[in-house]
Amino acid sequence: MAAQNRYMAVALEEAEAAARRGEVPVGAVIALDGEIVARAGNRTRELADITAHAEILAIRAASARLGQERLTGADLYVTLEPCAMCAAAISFARIRRLYYGAADPKGGGVDHGGRFYAQPTCHHAPEVYSGIAETAAAQILTDFFRNRR
Amino acid sequence: MAAQNRYMAVALEEAEAAARRGEVPVGAVIALDGEIVARAGNRTRELADITAHAEILAIRAASARLGQERLTGADLYVTLEPCAMCAAAISFARIRRLYYGAADPKGGGVDHGGRFYAQPTCHHAPEVYSGIAETAAAQILTDFFRNRR
Repeated sequence: MAAQNRYMAVALEEAEAAARRGEVPVGAVIALDGEIVARAGNRTRELADITAHAEILAIRAASARLGQERLTGADLYVTLEPCAMCAAAISFARIRRLYYGAADPKGGGVDHGGRFYAQPTCHHAPEVYSGIAETAAAQILTDFFRNRR
Repeated sequence: MAAQNRYMAVALEEAEAAARRGEVPVGAVIALDGEIVARAGNRTRELADITAHAEILAIRAASARLGQERLTGADLYVTLEPCAMCAAAISFARIRRLYYGAADPKGGGVDHGGRFYAQPTCHHAPEVYSGIAETAAAQILTDFFRNRR
């Protein structure tokens, strides 16, 4: 678990940086062959782009860096359960393993809602590991929304 | 239906242009207040970006043009039933009406798979109209995949 905790710690740093920018604090990391190939925090407000979730930005950055659409063998770490949009993008990118922190009963698309990876329309499902650094990931979100009220 | 057919005709042009670029031929148009604010075809191969579906590119272009994340009151026309990623993005962008051409039983996320708009995790559902120029939209896809074999 040492490597997993290290990558999730970087994702948490990205979430904290997003909070400081006034963004809903979610962070993501993509690791391949023991190396971080992309890290990103949510930038939907800054970019005025509803697709700019942390996972999407990380996937796009990793693809740009590697020059390939598919990130076969790569693992994605994200502080919050991905939504339906990100869950599908993770599948399309052929991510090998998905590690997420806090569950998202209101907006998640992995273990809630349409549960994309369990659908016959899903043609690649990553292995999913949830609850990684869950308390810290949830606390960042709780603090953010408390401060905004 | 005159305006709807006109917008879908532009989406079909975008699909045909995508086919000429060697991309899976899907096209999309976003209309707001009687004007086309964005049009796009699939560019996943060209951009090496699995998120570069026609709908995502159109939403991003419309948001960039209008300088706002949410496209409230806008309608999206797309030649193929959106996948789960695009269905969710359409919801997040607060698209008013979704018009699509051909159904996609293998990869659709609106009337197949996780049926995002029917989930409790979906907080805005567009009105959905399907089968608009369905035959032409399906034919472009059929021709494309036949020619690739």
